[in-house]
Amino acid sequence: MLCFENDYSEGAHPAVLRRLVETNLTPQPGYGADEYSESARAKIRDTCLSPTADIYFISGGTQTNALVIGSLLRPYEGVVSAVSGHVNAHEGGAVEFTGHKVLPLPHHDGKIAPSELRSFMGGFYSDPNHEHMVFPGMVYISHPTEYGTLYTLSELSAISEICHEHNIPLFLDGARLAAGLAADGAELSLPGIARLCDVFYIGGTKCGALCGEALVFPKGAPEHFLTLIKQRGALLAKGRLCGVQFDALFTDGLYFELGEHSVKTAMRLKAGLLERGYTFHIDSPTNQQFVIMPNSKLAELTGKVRYSFWEPYDNDHTVIRLATSWATEMAAVEELLAILR
Amino acid sequence: MLCFENDYSEGAHPAVLRRLVETNLTPQPGYGADEYSESARAKIRDTCLSPTADIYFISGGTQTNALVIGSLLRPYEGVVSAVSGHVNAHEGGAVEFTGHKVLPLPHHDGKIAPSELRSFMGGFYSDPNHEHMVFPGMVYISHPTEYGTLYTLSELSAISEICHEHNIPLFLDGARLAAGLAADGAELSLPGIARLCDVFYIGGTKCGALCGEALVFPKGAPEHFLTLIKQRGALLAKGRLCGVQFDALFTDGLYFELGEHSVKTAMRLKAGLLERGYTFHIDSPTNQQFVIMPNSKLAELTGKVRYSFWEPYDNDHTVIRLATSWATEMAAVEELLAILR
Amino acid sequence: MLCFENDYSEGAHPAVLRRLVETNLTPQPGYGADEYSESARAKIRDTCLSPTADIYFISGGTQTNALVIGSLLRPYEGVVSAVSGHVNAHEGGAVEFTGHKVLPLPHHDGKIAPSELRSFMGGFYSDPNHEHMVFPGMVYISHPTEYGTLYTLSELSAISEICHEHNIPLFLDGARLAAGLAADGAELSLPGIARLCDVFYIGGTKCGALCGEALVFPKGAPEHFLTLIKQRGALLAKGRLCGVQFDALFTDGLYFELGEHSVKTAMRLKAGLLERGYTFHIDSPTNQQFVIMPNSKLAELTGKVRYSFWEPYDNDHTVIRLATSWATEMAAVEELLAILR
Amino acid sequence: MLCFENDYSEGAHPAVLRRLVETNLTPQPGYGADEYSESARAKIRDTCLSPTADIYFISGGTQTNALVIGSLLRPYEGVVSAVSGHVNAHEGGAVEFTGHKVLPLPHHDGKIAPSELRSFMGGFYSDPNHEHMVFPGMVYISHPTEYGTLYTLSELSAISEICHEHNIPLFLDGARLAAGLAADGAELSLPGIARLCDVFYIGGTKCGALCGEALVFPKGAPEHFLTLIKQRGALLAKGRLCGVQFDALFTDGLYFELGEHSVKTAMRLKAGLLERGYTFHIDSPTNQQFVIMPNSKLAELTGKVRYSFWEPYDNDHTVIRLATSWATEMAAVEELLAILR
Repeated sequence: MLCFENDYSEGAHPAVLRRLVETNLTPQPGYGADEYSESARAKIRDTCLSPTADIYFISGGTQTNALVIGSLLRPYEGVVSAVSGHVNAHEGGAVEFTGHKVLPLPHHDGKIAPSELRSFMGGFYSDPNHEHMVFPGMVYISHPTEYGTLYTLSELSAISEICHEHNIPLFLDGARLAAGLAADGAELSLPGIARLCDVFYIGGTKCGALCGEALVFPKGAPEHFLTLIKQRGALLAKGRLCGVQFDALFTDGLYFELGEHSVKTAMRLKAGLLERGYTFHIDSPTNQQFVIMPNSKLAELTGKVRYSFWEPYDNDHTVIRLATSWATEMAAVEELLAILR
Repeated sequence: MLCFENDYSEGAHPAVLRRLVETNLTPQPGYGADEYSESARAKIRDTCLSPTADIYFISGGTQTNALVIGSLLRPYEGVVSAVSGHVNAHEGGAVEFTGHKVLPLPHHDGKIAPSELRSFMGGFYSDPNHEHMVFPGMVYISHPTEYGTLYTLSELSAISEICHEHNIPLFLDGARLAAGLAADGAELSLPGIARLCDVFYIGGTKCGALCGEALVFPKGAPEHFLTLIKQRGALLAKGRLCGVQFDALFTDGLYFELGEHSVKTAMRLKAGLLERGYTFHIDSPTNQQFVIMPNSKLAELTGKVRYSFWEPYDNDHTVIRLATSWATEMAAVEELLAILR
Repeated sequence: MLCFENDYSEGAHPAVLRRLVETNLTPQPGYGADEYSESARAKIRDTCLSPTADIYFISGGTQTNALVIGSLLRPYEGVVSAVSGHVNAHEGGAVEFTGHKVLPLPHHDGKIAPSELRSFMGGFYSDPNHEHMVFPGMVYISHPTEYGTLYTLSELSAISEICHEHNIPLFLDGARLAAGLAADGAELSLPGIARLCDVFYIGGTKCGALCGEALVFPKGAPEHFLTLIKQRGALLAKGRLCGVQFDALFTDGLYFELGEHSVKTAMRLKAGLLERGYTFHIDSPTNQQFVIMPNSKLAELTGKVRYSFWEPYDNDHTVIRLATSWATEMAAVEELLAILR
Repeated sequence: MLCFENDYSEGAHPAVLRRLVETNLTPQPGYGADEYSESARAKIRDTCLSPTADIYFISGGTQTNALVIGSLLRPYEGVVSAVSGHVNAHEGGAVEFTGHKVLPLPHHDGKIAPSELRSFMGGFYSDPNHEHMVFPGMVYISHPTEYGTLYTLSELSAISEICHEHNIPLFLDGARLAAGLAADGAELSLPGIARLCDVFYIGGTKCGALCGEALVFPKGAPEHFLTLIKQRGALLAKGRLCGVQFDALFTDGLYFELGEHSVKTAMRLKAGLLERGYTFHIDSPTNQQFVIMPNSKLAELTGKVRYSFWEPYDNDHTVIRLATSWATEMAAVEELLAILR
């Protein structure tokens, strides 16, 4: 069975696993105070050119999103997000469970438009009834988005500027950041993100780790953030588990290499599908490809290929998602293309 | 440096790690639907003699406690716990963050007394003002307790009976259950616990796993529990991480063996300390030992032994905790005893 | 100064106030157990032809909405509402503060369309990822809506049917129900609403009371609802305050009379404005009228008339809301029409 | 039937009601922006010698407590309270519903001891595990306490000092403040309270109003407090209802007069009971008296006197509460004493 269902079907990259084995029996303090976490933090600070950043490792993306949003917002505030944002659509109400509203903006291939953000913020404060409404207290974006698309440098700069005019933080969800950094034409680098965002995370789960996201506060974390992590159940006793993995991922550029591999395989898949006349729901430069498939063709895939249902397109077509990852072999892509001949 | 600070200083038992390596590249569905999780569930059901139990793997103890308590309680209910219970004292308010009160009962070496529970429940319902108060909606106990002590079968039966008279669930926190099962004189087995409790968990983090607790609902989980896990940020995309580990722990009795090892080393330590005239704050039959140490002696340990401060005893003494684990070598115990001569 | 700003600018109808004075010194039990509350409940049950309804009096609308939604939803559920619904737009995030998401549907002059509700519900359950999403656990509608419009009997029946097919409650916010019952062509009566809804409230604040909404559960309230009211801070010690007022409002048809008065004055205003060539943003049959006003005209009103800004229309026009109430004198309407000549 | 059950059995003081009638038809802006609320605020600021205080009117005590505590605490903080404090015992978990823990201290006749508070705060910060615990983020006291007792000036000063050393606010629940100000030997005045507390409220419900508490922030309210009030459902559309009442209560010293009356009747009752040989559970100088009654005597009261059950004392005695209020007639006290002969 070919597996293009998602980018978290395998375990960890072998180098990551190897490092877990090597360090396994060395006793370490708990809760993220271990030497591996410290080393990983130092490497990430270097890579981000953000020498005083506070960094925490959290086990997964929804956990991280709810923790950041619920901790940074004041009680009368909500988080602005694309209506298609993961926090608005696919996290089982994790943000609302922390007591806060998601304030949805329209999405454009998964992205919010700076001009619409600006007019939303302006409209809010000029509404004479705004004290009866939820204040926009943070902007959340995902990069790559849920549709695999990327913000340009000028878009991120504009969003950052709007946030800072209104004195609210900008939060970038980088669950799939490795693919976003590696994409052809990508304008955003880790130092650029660290400069423009107030908080962001570098996804490990979807790029070579068993679990874990590196949460970075370039300008410093909120007070007593460790207690907030504990309170939300997100503090691993064996913090070393994430520390070791990120230490390995940020050694010798492994993280970037894995991102590049996921994009390279995706681009081969995309090119092959275009050659074969398939059309795409969205033009994604990263590891997620959204293909408009004839339903007849879909039936043929059964038992041969695992993919994700995305949404119905019309009576005869369905949008499916084909995802590659650090673990996708190029041979598997060719095999898939052969099936989709 | 000798390490008796806690039972989560090392990584995973080598057999667990080996299994992670072996299964690493086999693609699996996410979110706990992988074959390793299924296999682990089957083994745990067998071991618990609880063939229809629902089982979920959660990354850590606080996460599990907050999830269970917040999900099962109705909005007007709180959870009854010993005042010393982990959920009341050391989880940064994780239960209250879900909107529920912890209703504290006195503790007796970490345990609640069935008679006091009965009289609390009776007193609540006979108070004419009880509709203005938080209803007791669940009983939480830890076994072993935070003081390393164990409930007897008759105590657990009595508590279970009181819960069921009032139609509220009994929840057992088994973060250190392996040690509790292995202790000399332990009266509670997994099948016994599964019979008397409505929900409990089998701790992996503190017994050989990198992370993970196996949450067991012998009579079935609440509706849409997967969504609740997701909502609280506790759903790992790579559910296999916990599944593989518990599958290894429940193969060939490894889990029980590790628990026995932790108790055996602790009992040697205890016997050695008694011989040397040390006294104990509490008589614990499990892997946590609470020693009343002269402060002068404590000073000598600096730089040689890692231990946990517990609480001041008097002007000249301090209660410290010495913990063993699956990874503690007997030679290290002897070395510690040599230092404490 | 003419006052058409809203329908809560004055105190209580004189008959209501008189009853407060008459009953003032008779001692009564607290928390809604007083004889006036009992009498009001009996009258409301009679009027609704709902002899076993549970009825509670709550001080205001947002309070009632948050209480009902937060109490009835299970933790993994959200409430479906028109995007324009008061709970989604103008309650400062009160629903999210209880931990639940508002699931917005498009609005049509303030109403949700049964067909869109049906397709939303169907779409949710057929989405293979729905376990990662917030379950629709209740439908909220306002009647009259925030735009003054009314559901027809066939619309409410269809919505009720969809809810019951999915086994979720239908909640009707009747903050301005008196006007809705009195409108020309209104198809919904109190017995009809009690038959089709699982919970609704009869607004007092906006129809003759100093404060208070009568919350009706035709099929019975959730268990321990009094405790939930207390927990959310909504339980008045002197429950008599609301009881007396609703008792007066439901004596000799006063409530209906006040609603009729508010509609009659609004209809005279509407007719007069139409004669004068004004256009309306929405065709409302109730006490709120949304007029598209030339900005030049608006300037003339300053210092003479109080109205509510609603939203900008175009560069030269603004939508304003003119509201009448039980207290609006017909002479004031004529005076306003004279100004708007 | 004599009514000594509580201090909220009647409606409002006639002067308060009269003012409601007089102002009834004058249109006013909503949500607390009316002229009566402004006037009441001015009078309260004058009385408190607190010219820049922010003042809000909230409908009841539990509402106010949950609002203040939930709004001022940061997410990792809880509120310190006597174990007997209303917020810990009798508010249905309203504080926990906002996500925060109540951190209980022992009570001494309802009061916390400054020395115990100091040692709790010190102990917290010196505990090496305190980052895993709930931070004390506010101190809550009630004055008079739930047992009718009063803090001395030196006690309140000491508590205030400890709070400010730790940079956390001191919150005084004055639900029955009128009685506390009027008691013989009372050391605390409104200006004194305003000087030593960061936030407090002046109870109206239990002193002459139909509903309402005046919430005072001598040093200013938190940002966007109106939105927080709205969010918790506590913002009355007709804010005038509370404004008018407090305006009347703070005209010509009525509030103080009513407090004095409640204390005078209570002291006559207390003296009479002492003469008759009754003993008291607690020596209360205010309007609540806690009498240890022989159960045989209690039976005699049935049908003649309404009182509150407090708690069992021993097999033959019960503690009951007898409360007076602004509305208690001295003749009723004498009648009660005659019955208790």
